[in-house]
Amino acid sequence: MSAGQQGELALLAQIRRRAAQTSGSGLRQGIGDDCALLRVQPGEELAVTTDLSIAGRHFRLDWHSPESVGHRALARGLSDLAAMGARPVAAFLSVGLPRELAATKGRRSAWVTRFLDGLLTLAVAHKTPLAGGDLSESPIALADIVLVGAVPRGKALLRSGARPGHLLYVTGALGGASAGLARLAELAGPSSPIKTRPQPPFISKKLTAQLAPHLYPQPRIAQGLWLQRRGLASAAIDLSDGLSTDLAHLCYESGVAAEVDAAVLPIHPAATLAQALDGGEDYELLFTARPTARLPRTIAGVQITPIGRILAPRPGQPAATLLTPQGPQPLIPRGWEHFS
Amino acid sequence: MSAGQQGELALLAQIRRRAAQTSGSGLRQGIGDDCALLRVQPGEELAVTTDLSIAGRHFRLDWHSPESVGHRALARGLSDLAAMGARPVAAFLSVGLPRELAATKGRRSAWVTRFLDGLLTLAVAHKTPLAGGDLSESPIALADIVLVGAVPRGKALLRSGARPGHLLYVTGALGGASAGLARLAELAGPSSPIKTRPQPPFISKKLTAQLAPHLYPQPRIAQGLWLQRRGLASAAIDLSDGLSTDLAHLCYESGVAAEVDAAVLPIHPAATLAQALDGGEDYELLFTARPTARLPRTIAGVQITPIGRILAPRPGQPAATLLTPQGPQPLIPRGWEHFS
Repeated sequence: MSAGQQGELALLAQIRRRAAQTSGSGLRQGIGDDCALLRVQPGEELAVTTDLSIAGRHFRLDWHSPESVGHRALARGLSDLAAMGARPVAAFLSVGLPRELAATKGRRSAWVTRFLDGLLTLAVAHKTPLAGGDLSESPIALADIVLVGAVPRGKALLRSGARPGHLLYVTGALGGASAGLARLAELAGPSSPIKTRPQPPFISKKLTAQLAPHLYPQPRIAQGLWLQRRGLASAAIDLSDGLSTDLAHLCYESGVAAEVDAAVLPIHPAATLAQALDGGEDYELLFTARPTARLPRTIAGVQITPIGRILAPRPGQPAATLLTPQGPQPLIPRGWEHFS
Repeated sequence: MSAGQQGELALLAQIRRRAAQTSGSGLRQGIGDDCALLRVQPGEELAVTTDLSIAGRHFRLDWHSPESVGHRALARGLSDLAAMGARPVAAFLSVGLPRELAATKGRRSAWVTRFLDGLLTLAVAHKTPLAGGDLSESPIALADIVLVGAVPRGKALLRSGARPGHLLYVTGALGGASAGLARLAELAGPSSPIKTRPQPPFISKKLTAQLAPHLYPQPRIAQGLWLQRRGLASAAIDLSDGLSTDLAHLCYESGVAAEVDAAVLPIHPAATLAQALDGGEDYELLFTARPTARLPRTIAGVQITPIGRILAPRPGQPAATLLTPQGPQPLIPRGWEHFS
């Protein structure tokens, strides 16, 4: 057995031990067989999503702490479940790591141990057991996260249910993640080349707190479940690529157009209007509801803001319009940038 | 929008169009929303597995055709379902590709198109819809495959059910994949460095047929389902890492020992005994049954061979023994090599 294989076995043992400490009602059998076995309630259907995170594209080893990389990888998947109004049942992690990152010696400070700290802290917060996955040595660091959720049959929040006249809402504040990323880039210096190895952290704890919308985005599981259980949302999507892009997706799938009022957008205090419109990775929920639906001001402690309305489709024109003091402007999808 | 993003959108469009041509009874909603939605029958539970394939470790762009890479990636996951006796419900594909491999121009000959050809041909053969996934540019080619299957509650074939006195069986022939890999290495020449870019194929169609156990392994879905439905297998595992290693896993999870009779092993005609014992990636099923169970000689056209029996655990000794004309020998786990 090679040193690499011994390292893999040591890491597998750590993952298996720590995964056993996560739990959830739907997990019948976790790591240790050919497949994990999951159970859902009678009358539920499954929501499944996968999200691939690759070093240099979705995160940077010289910018993001291991905890942030683990948190963000899982947050992307949980946010997809939130957008369907699904409850998390289990997570699966396929991870590829260079040997130096996979080493588990000096366990509390090892990169992979801290990566799992970040991932499992968020998993526990959302009662999501880590039920399995795969592990491989890899020239670059990468993680593919699979989330399995459950939702009562026919009750999932889809992108396709928005109708003209429905109102458009968003949870939380917009642009904070994008503003945080811009601040990180500024601190790293001009035209900082992407490092492929972890670097000493250059941001303080205080700064980490300020950059939390980027480093530790909070998936809106509770808000998605609340909307689904009350049947209040006619359509929903999570803001992973930015409002302008994700609204275009929702309009496309619903066959509608939309207008957004710039004056009422809940822009994060650190963000610009452009970051609120086009910045990705806020992981807030964008959803629609009938005009007769009564939405509260907050759901599970998170602000709910009406930001516009759904219109009849306008063939040949941009699906979305931004209402500004200077008049209406086309809202062109400009999100989905990551680091490429 | 960058050229890279346009390439990704073109590839996404191809995947979405081709995925829509796969189908399965359990898929309610595939690609196009935040999650796929799946349904299983009342009384069924879910089997979920993920398998990560990375260029240079699980396949080589200079050795394996794109069709073989796609086939093998999906076969690994289907084989895990087979080992649980589960029926496939849906597959998910997260794929990372260098830009040159992701390009879809010259569609029939593009690397990614041929990769999907191999993957989807096997998916269709096993009635497994491609229900979602993720896509990213990546410095190295990689694919993470997720399989979701369904099995009646409490009926999954586990690794942990083998008891002393049970007989040990294997499907098909052993060592063929390992022999094929050795032949590929021989043809490629001594100490061939791993190429990171696809090379002109150096193997003929005739040779491809000879190397089929390695290039196109057949997951034993029908055989696993047959065993599960009749309740005939007390434990099962798929032979991904090699008989010596996977038998050790089964013994460990069942808390038993085992002996294998070398004289009756169904060794592939091209393989050596060592390849049959330690060569991985045959994707045959290794299973146990009570001595009173009557197993047929073939299941769904594939040979079933009794190769040994389960013994009481022997603390401090190797779990498995190989019976040879020279007497019993310890059967040491020597599998799980891949290319590292």
